[in-house]
Amino acid sequence: MKGIADVKGFMCGTGKGHIKNSIHPSARKDILVILSVKPATAAAVFTTNDIKAAPVKLSRKIVKSSSKVYGIVANSGNANACTGERGIRDAAAMAKLCENLTGNSPFLVASTGVIGEFLPMDRIEKGIKEAVENLGKATSVEAAESIMTTDTFPKTAFFEGKGFTIGGIAKGAGMIDPAMATMLSFIATDVEIEKDLLEKALKEANETSFNAITVDGDMSTNDTVFLLANGASGKRITEENYDEFLNGLQKVMKSLAHQIVKDGEGATKVARIRVVGARTKEEAKKVARKIALSPLVKTAIFGCDPNWGRIIAAAGSAGAEIIEEKTELKIGTYLLFKGTKVAFDEIAVHNYMKENEEIAIEVNLNLGTASFEYLTCDLSYEYVKINAEYRT
Amino acid sequence: MKGIADVKGFMCGTGKGHIKNSIHPSARKDILVILSVKPATAAAVFTTNDIKAAPVKLSRKIVKSSSKVYGIVANSGNANACTGERGIRDAAAMAKLCENLTGNSPFLVASTGVIGEFLPMDRIEKGIKEAVENLGKATSVEAAESIMTTDTFPKTAFFEGKGFTIGGIAKGAGMIDPAMATMLSFIATDVEIEKDLLEKALKEANETSFNAITVDGDMSTNDTVFLLANGASGKRITEENYDEFLNGLQKVMKSLAHQIVKDGEGATKVARIRVVGARTKEEAKKVARKIALSPLVKTAIFGCDPNWGRIIAAAGSAGAEIIEEKTELKIGTYLLFKGTKVAFDEIAVHNYMKENEEIAIEVNLNLGTASFEYLTCDLSYEYVKINAEYRT
Repeated sequence: MKGIADVKGFMCGTGKGHIKNSIHPSARKDILVILSVKPATAAAVFTTNDIKAAPVKLSRKIVKSSSKVYGIVANSGNANACTGERGIRDAAAMAKLCENLTGNSPFLVASTGVIGEFLPMDRIEKGIKEAVENLGKATSVEAAESIMTTDTFPKTAFFEGKGFTIGGIAKGAGMIDPAMATMLSFIATDVEIEKDLLEKALKEANETSFNAITVDGDMSTNDTVFLLANGASGKRITEENYDEFLNGLQKVMKSLAHQIVKDGEGATKVARIRVVGARTKEEAKKVARKIALSPLVKTAIFGCDPNWGRIIAAAGSAGAEIIEEKTELKIGTYLLFKGTKVAFDEIAVHNYMKENEEIAIEVNLNLGTASFEYLTCDLSYEYVKINAEYRT
Repeated sequence: MKGIADVKGFMCGTGKGHIKNSIHPSARKDILVILSVKPATAAAVFTTNDIKAAPVKLSRKIVKSSSKVYGIVANSGNANACTGERGIRDAAAMAKLCENLTGNSPFLVASTGVIGEFLPMDRIEKGIKEAVENLGKATSVEAAESIMTTDTFPKTAFFEGKGFTIGGIAKGAGMIDPAMATMLSFIATDVEIEKDLLEKALKEANETSFNAITVDGDMSTNDTVFLLANGASGKRITEENYDEFLNGLQKVMKSLAHQIVKDGEGATKVARIRVVGARTKEEAKKVARKIALSPLVKTAIFGCDPNWGRIIAAAGSAGAEIIEEKTELKIGTYLLFKGTKVAFDEIAVHNYMKENEEIAIEVNLNLGTASFEYLTCDLSYEYVKINAEYRT
């Protein structure tokens, strides 16, 4: 599977930081270093949580103040969040070490894992050295694996356009909720592009990908998406061919977002919540999000129960204009509700939900022409198990 | 346990409507009729969900247009929601039957249960007749039992003031989320009071009771609180002795709210989330609510895991002013966070969480003097089980 390591001029290296304290040589890689052979224009989006992890605070400054960056250093297993001044110093030390070892500056930093523990800097330094020595050797899958926490599979995506490529990796699993979706994602492209335009593309693609998914409604302290463009392909993106680039970026980000939901903690199914016929896109999103977040809807999906009443009740509580008599609801191609209950084949809908890994739910408000699509997963025993036992 | 049936001049009767289709004579009572021997002043609060059940639509009109009411008729097992015109006719028929049988008018109506099914009116009529024949025979506990759905115990509360009493019953369990908390509650008092003042008291007591609890963040189509005052005690409540009445009403409603959370679907623990030191009460509530709703916090409570990072992360995403460096967090009497992690005895906090049925979580924002307290329950395997299998 292709991803960030397959974009021209980007190299990945991984190392063992033994962050979760395992000193066994077979411990998994938990450090990732990404280097661009040329200085790269950088854009980023971060968590809007008021409690921001140290690497988020630091990277936000770097992206703002630097016209170009050279790379990214990241670790899994420890979020370096709620760690005060020492956390900031540790994050800066991670970047500094990469800068010294590669002779290129600056580096961006990201962390994911448990909140509130200090980083084991001695072990992390060893892991970073190992990763830098291995630069160019890690595949996209290996890069994605090194940032996994409770993820069960690595997430990569790749787009090949005319004369350019875009590759990304992501990690997700728990604490996934938009504004923005709680996760890490690193995306690289070899186009040449102005910083303003790159930021615009990231923001636009983010709205319909990472900001349109939820696993549990919890927003992390560490959410970070980095997008680096190093121009190595020689392809130049301007206002004229912007849509060509945006289209590719959206494909990569939507694919990663979909993989994150699919791998939601304990998830057995993905539900695609589509709200159409809304007065505005904002209202469509409100309704879709409320349905996507409802524990009652999510447990019904887990049970393959076509419990349309819960979906309608969630829609009604979204705070958007909704008129019962006009509302229609479909699961798959089955019409279940049209102003009032429709006689439908309950067994057939149950079977549709049981036999498909991806469930389509469509609510038509019949009030306008705006629409929005949200991805969510079901709520299973396994979600409770994973999160009740996470640290113990 | 005393409740609504123990208030002077109020009588309860229950009957079998066989709403869930059991024709076995031992099927449980699912119809409740409450009659006041004197015309009663009525106040009510209803769901703010845009999708409102037929009895909510009907009762809202009755409370608005009638200076006095005589009683309440309710059923469990079927919500009579999303049932269109026929639903309204059915709800009106339930009230009409009570009015004809008792010779008193009007009656308020409430329903709870599955959404989207039409009421089995023939069986309900039989149940209402049985309930009216039994008026005065049902205890408060029996009245509370007749409105249970997935509740595991009946909920009653009683307050004895100087020369007056207040008694209530409630049902809750799932779809509990404020604005207002999704449940039914019927409260009666024998004081004499103007409608305006009664409404004011209900609204005020509701803010810190049913509107300060959550089980799963889902808002029902059927939320209803009725408060009836029939003056049978001869005690008159005016602006002068309003606080005396409000105090009793708050005690009754807080007790019922607490019982609802305790009986949250699958709940093993109640968590009392107290936010202090906020700039405003609204901000304190926002933060408390966000923590109370977080699936990650709720699963950690289930696992007795003092995972303060999740609590701080939830607080940070509430959209209220919060400064990491100033924030303090306690579980029980243990200080876990004070701007940064505090060295605490993890085993001791784990044991505190394990050994207590009610967990106290306090977040001090240190930004002002406002506070708010929210009740929530943990998220367990059992919640998933109950809701994945509800209808099947």
